[in-house]
Amino acid sequence: MPETKVKKNDDFNEWYNEIVELSDLCDKRYPIKGMNVWRPYGWKLMSHVDELIRLEMDKTNHLEVNFPLLIPESSFKKEEEHIEGFGSEVYWVTHAGLNELEEKWLLRPTSETAMYPIFSLWIRSHADLPLKTYQIVNTFRYETKQTRAFIRVREIHFFEAHTCHIDFRDAEDQIKEDKEIAKRLFQKLSLPFILSKRPEWDKFAGAFYTISIDVLMPSGRTLQLGSIHQYKDNFSKPYEISYETEDGKHAYCHQTTYGMSERILGALVGIHGDNKGLIMPSAVAPIQVVIIPILFKETKESVLKACENLDKQLKEKCIKSHIDKRDITPGNKYYDWELKGVPIRVEIGPKDIEKKQVVIVRRDTSSKISAPENSSVETIMDELQKLSENLYNNAKKLLDNNVHRVQTIEEAKNLNGIVELPWCGVESCALEIEEILEGNTLGEPIDEKKCQDFCPVCSKPAITWMRYAKTY
Amino acid sequence: MPETKVKKNDDFNEWYNEIVELSDLCDKRYPIKGMNVWRPYGWKLMSHVDELIRLEMDKTNHLEVNFPLLIPESSFKKEEEHIEGFGSEVYWVTHAGLNELEEKWLLRPTSETAMYPIFSLWIRSHADLPLKTYQIVNTFRYETKQTRAFIRVREIHFFEAHTCHIDFRDAEDQIKEDKEIAKRLFQKLSLPFILSKRPEWDKFAGAFYTISIDVLMPSGRTLQLGSIHQYKDNFSKPYEISYETEDGKHAYCHQTTYGMSERILGALVGIHGDNKGLIMPSAVAPIQVVIIPILFKETKESVLKACENLDKQLKEKCIKSHIDKRDITPGNKYYDWELKGVPIRVEIGPKDIEKKQVVIVRRDTSSKISAPENSSVETIMDELQKLSENLYNNAKKLLDNNVHRVQTIEEAKNLNGIVELPWCGVESCALEIEEILEGNTLGEPIDEKKCQDFCPVCSKPAITWMRYAKTY
Repeated sequence: MPETKVKKNDDFNEWYNEIVELSDLCDKRYPIKGMNVWRPYGWKLMSHVDELIRLEMDKTNHLEVNFPLLIPESSFKKEEEHIEGFGSEVYWVTHAGLNELEEKWLLRPTSETAMYPIFSLWIRSHADLPLKTYQIVNTFRYETKQTRAFIRVREIHFFEAHTCHIDFRDAEDQIKEDKEIAKRLFQKLSLPFILSKRPEWDKFAGAFYTISIDVLMPSGRTLQLGSIHQYKDNFSKPYEISYETEDGKHAYCHQTTYGMSERILGALVGIHGDNKGLIMPSAVAPIQVVIIPILFKETKESVLKACENLDKQLKEKCIKSHIDKRDITPGNKYYDWELKGVPIRVEIGPKDIEKKQVVIVRRDTSSKISAPENSSVETIMDELQKLSENLYNNAKKLLDNNVHRVQTIEEAKNLNGIVELPWCGVESCALEIEEILEGNTLGEPIDEKKCQDFCPVCSKPAITWMRYAKTY
Repeated sequence: MPETKVKKNDDFNEWYNEIVELSDLCDKRYPIKGMNVWRPYGWKLMSHVDELIRLEMDKTNHLEVNFPLLIPESSFKKEEEHIEGFGSEVYWVTHAGLNELEEKWLLRPTSETAMYPIFSLWIRSHADLPLKTYQIVNTFRYETKQTRAFIRVREIHFFEAHTCHIDFRDAEDQIKEDKEIAKRLFQKLSLPFILSKRPEWDKFAGAFYTISIDVLMPSGRTLQLGSIHQYKDNFSKPYEISYETEDGKHAYCHQTTYGMSERILGALVGIHGDNKGLIMPSAVAPIQVVIIPILFKETKESVLKACENLDKQLKEKCIKSHIDKRDITPGNKYYDWELKGVPIRVEIGPKDIEKKQVVIVRRDTSSKISAPENSSVETIMDELQKLSENLYNNAKKLLDNNVHRVQTIEEAKNLNGIVELPWCGVESCALEIEEILEGNTLGEPIDEKKCQDFCPVCSKPAITWMRYAKTY
C-alpha cells in the first residue's frame, strides 16, 4: 500500500501538512496566506462536525442566529480589555467602492461586539432570560505566526454560543451545561480532552474567567479546540444589557460564551490519522462504508447485485455507504478510501458469494472479518462502533501517558506533553517556568483545587497545580 | 384577530417592512444600514431554503465547496468587464491591525475571481470535466439605493453554483439542468416565476448571456430571485482554465454559474403573506403543524394526552409539529402562530375528545375541518399539500393576470405588472420605452423567439418580445 512521503512518527508536522492536501480536505494555494479553500471532502467533514454541534445546541435550547460580519469601530470599542486583546489582530474595511467610509468597520474576530448592542434591545425583563443563542460563521484574525491548515488560519470556521442570565449563579449553571456538551460532543469524535482554567493573564480579553478545552497532538504539543468563558457583567455593563427584575428593579445580565473552531478537524486529522491517510470516526465520516466489488467477467452481475443489496440495507439503517464501481483495480480503490479515512471497507467477490459472506476491513486496525451475508449489516454497525471506541482509547492512552505531575523543574524539563507543577499563584513564577520549559501555561485543572506541595520557583506553599505544554 | 397596522393591499411596501420584523425574521436595528440580524425564526426559514437547494445540488452531482471571503485586488482585476461591473460596489480591506496591507483585498461580491485561479489548478485534463461546484456563503455589495430586508441588503446570504465544461454545448446542457432545478425548487416554494434572457447591456458583468429568474410581487413590481449565466470562455481565458483534450491538444473550458439569494425569503414573505402575518409553504415551514390544547381543569389530562399522541404520530411521519403548552389563552396562541405562518393549526378540546376528532385549521384559507382522530394524520398531510398548492395557484393567478402582451406604448402605459412589447433589437428603442414606462427591461421570453409585430418606437420589424416592469 502506498504511504505518505513523510511518516507520522518521524515528523508529525510535515506529515500533517502532507495529509490535509493529499486527502483533499483543503487547498492551500489560495493567493492569501492562511486563507485556504475548503475542498468538497473537507467541507463535508466540517459540515458533519457542525451538525453534531447543532444537535447539542438544539438539545439544550440554544437558538441559532446569524449576525453581520462587519462591526463598526464604535461598537467594538465599548469594552476596554476586549479591544486591547483584539485590536492588533483585526482586519479593517475602510472603503466602499471609491468612497472612504465615515466610520471604519472591522471583520469580526469573534462576535461579542456585534451581538451585544442588539442583545440590549432584545432583553427587557427577567422573562426574556436566559437568552441562549449561537451561530456558526467565519471569523477573521490577522495571524502573524506561521499558518497551518485548520490549526492556525486567518479565516476561521467558528462556532460561538452567547448566553445571558439573571445572575452569576445561573451563568455558572450554563458553564456546567457547556462542559457536559463538550463531553458528549468529543466522545462522538473520539477525542479525549482536558479542561484547564486559564491564568488571569491569559484569559479571554474581557472575561471574568476562561476554561480552555485542549487535546494532545501526537507531536506532544497541545491544541486548544475551544473555550468556555464566564463574563460576569463585564460586557453587560458597557453594552447596557440589563433587565427588570421580578420586583421591578434593574439589574445587569451575567453572560457566558462557548467557542470552538475548525481546529476540531485539525485534531481529527492529527490524532486519528496514520501513514495511509485519515481515519474518521463514524459520527462524522462523509462515507462510513465503502463497498468494493471484486469483478470478473463471468460473475460480474451477481457480485454487483450483492453489492447493491448490501448498500440498500445499509442505507435503510441510515448508514452512509457507497459502492465504488470505477474501472480501476481494487487495490487502487483501497488506497483511495484509506487515504480518505473511510472507517469500513467491504469487499465482495465471487468466492464470497459462493460462501454467502462479505469481507469487512477496518480502517484503523486493518483487521479482516468474514461475516455471513445475513448478519453483515449488524456486524458492520458493530465494527463502526468499535472503530470509534478504538480511536478514542488510543487517543486516551496518548493523553494519559503524556500528562506528568512532578514537583521540580528539573523533572519537568525532560518530559514530553503536558506537565503539572505546583504553583503558588504568582504570575512571575509561572512565567519563569514557561521560559525554562519553552512552553505555555495551559491553566489549572478545574476538577481539583488543592496542592500540598511547594512552588518550584519561590518555594512558597502552592495553592494549585499549573499545567505547562508546548502549544499550537 | 389582530392584524398588521398597514394592510397588504393598501401599502404593500410598508406592510412588508412591518411583517418581517413582527414575525421575528430579522432585526433591522444593527448599526450598519442594510446589514440585518437574522433572528432565530428567520434563520431557520433561510436554512430550510438552503437545504432544499442542497438537495437539488446533490441530486445533480454538484459538490459543495467553501472559498475564502477575501479576494486580492490582482485576482479581481483579471477580467475587464467584470471589474467594470462590480468595481464601484465592493468593500475594501486595507489594514490589518495597525499595518497597511501591501495589496488591498475586497469582500467577495460574487466568487468568480476567488474561485477561478484555483479552478485553473484543479482542471488539467478532459477527465476532470465537468467540474460542478457550489457554495452557500454571504456576499457583500455596497448598495447606495434604499435597503429593504432580504430584498436589497449589503450583506447577502447567497447561493452560487460554478461549473466548467469541455465546450459550449456541454455548458448549454448545464443551463438546461439549471432551469429544471429552478422548476423543481420554486414549485416546492409555491413560487411561480418567469425566465427572461437579459438584453446585452444588462447581462452579468463578463457573461456571454444571462437568464434571470423573476417573480411578481403583489405591488406589481418584479423581484429577481436568481440568475443563470453562460460565460462561454470569457473567464476561462483570463484565468487560464484550460484542459488537455482526448487528442492531446489544449482547450479553454466553457463555464456557467447559477446564483440565488435570500431574496427567495423576501418572495415567500411578500407573495404568500397576509394581514395576519406570514404563510409558509410546508416545504420550508420551521413548524408545519402547531397543536393547541383547549384546557379546562377537569379534562386537562386527557386533552394533553391526545395532543401528545397526535404530536408523536406526526413526528413519526417526519412532520415538524409542536404542542403549544404556554399558559396563555388559545386566542393568543392562534395569533402568534398565524403571525409566524405555521401552515396547519390543530385544536383539541374536551368536546373533540368526546367526538373522537380533532379540528384542523388551514392558515391560508382559515377553513376548519373536523377530522376523525384515527385518520387525522392523513388529513393533516393532505391539507399541508393542499395549502402549498393553493399558495402556488394564488401566486400563479397574480402572475398570469399581470403579464400583458400589447403592441403600443399607449396600451402599456396604463398596465400594472409586466408588459411585453415587440422589439426590433436596438438598445436605444428599449431604453426609450424604459423611460416612458418608468420601468426596466427584464429581457426576452426564453421559450419563444418570433414576434411578427413592429417596434413601437422605430416601427421596424420586431425580432422578439421585450419585457418591461418596475423592479425591486
